[in-house]
Amino acid sequence: MDKRERIPEPTVARLPLYFRVLADLHEAGITIVSSGDIASAAGIKASQFRKDLSYFGEFGIQGLGYPVEHLLRRIASIMQLDRKHRVVLVGTGNLGTALGNFPGFLRWGFEIVEAFDADPEKVGTQLGSVRVRDIAELPTPLAVDLGILAVPAGAAGETAALLEASGVKAILNFTGRTLPPAQTVVVRNVDLTHELAILAYHSATR
Amino acid sequence: MDKRERIPEPTVARLPLYFRVLADLHEAGITIVSSGDIASAAGIKASQFRKDLSYFGEFGIQGLGYPVEHLLRRIASIMQLDRKHRVVLVGTGNLGTALGNFPGFLRWGFEIVEAFDADPEKVGTQLGSVRVRDIAELPTPLAVDLGILAVPAGAAGETAALLEASGVKAILNFTGRTLPPAQTVVVRNVDLTHELAILAYHSATR
Repeated sequence: MDKRERIPEPTVARLPLYFRVLADLHEAGITIVSSGDIASAAGIKASQFRKDLSYFGEFGIQGLGYPVEHLLRRIASIMQLDRKHRVVLVGTGNLGTALGNFPGFLRWGFEIVEAFDADPEKVGTQLGSVRVRDIAELPTPLAVDLGILAVPAGAAGETAALLEASGVKAILNFTGRTLPPAQTVVVRNVDLTHELAILAYHSATR
Repeated sequence: MDKRERIPEPTVARLPLYFRVLADLHEAGITIVSSGDIASAAGIKASQFRKDLSYFGEFGIQGLGYPVEHLLRRIASIMQLDRKHRVVLVGTGNLGTALGNFPGFLRWGFEIVEAFDADPEKVGTQLGSVRVRDIAELPTPLAVDLGILAVPAGAAGETAALLEASGVKAILNFTGRTLPPAQTVVVRNVDLTHELAILAYHSATR
């Protein structure tokens, strides 16, 4: 494995933020930027930004700042955002449909190329440019990088297993359930209720 | 301010997970549980769970385990999950509609009691039990705890300012934009594209 493994998780989690800010600056025609300007646009401290960047080498130009395009390309390369990703969506209820039409995904190269649902009324319908298929067709070999799991909580574990059997190597889990340990799949959980609860906590204790 | 402020952020972020696991155990009639069982259900290490809990006092009963109901109540109280929260939703597109109908929110006491949109076709429509109001009616004093911001990225900053002027004290920001610094509002950002990017990174580097 390469040295990217040593990047701390909170730093990894901030890289997409830097990527977005740098992409905006690049689009605006800005070629050099200070750490203070990037940090302020990202809503963090400049010292944090400089520390995060230090994991990837030297970027700043003494007395000038950071070269926007070079840094943008470097972060894109680290985060694999310099290539397309094929994504399968499972579960096309309210949330799944919103995720299937989420404009940010395509903009960053994440294309939903397969969609599955268990509901006979959903199967055969169109979601964006994809026709929703019957989940009974899983496991089927899927030439995708990533899976989005948006099925009801009760179906989380069994559906994740079907995705794994289909060759999916990473799952973004919106079900609000902890998935059973898997051999080959990386899981990242997004629990929207937890996000609201964490916000309520901070709101009450600030 | 009380001692809760000293709880590290990663610990706070795991409390909803413990709450969910304990609520499931309690519902299943289990009264005492080991740290290993809780940790396994939460998908983390038992030592992590014990360390997190140590910020709130002594809970374990030597040689027995943790009393489920007592611990559940304590976490609910810390996280303010022992009371109802009134929530305003701004933006009722695909994602906003999914959030407005998200079953997990109501289950944890988060009730969407107001919804706003700028689109004349959306204004006056029904979202769950709420009638969507015109965003032009903001700022208007809102008796809510939390705001969910699901407007297009370009409207993020100005809409957040309207919410702040309405008295909203905390915003869950789904716009994918960093909000301008605010005086009175706590912001938590959920960027679904970033989540997918972080997953892609881990999938490629594992």
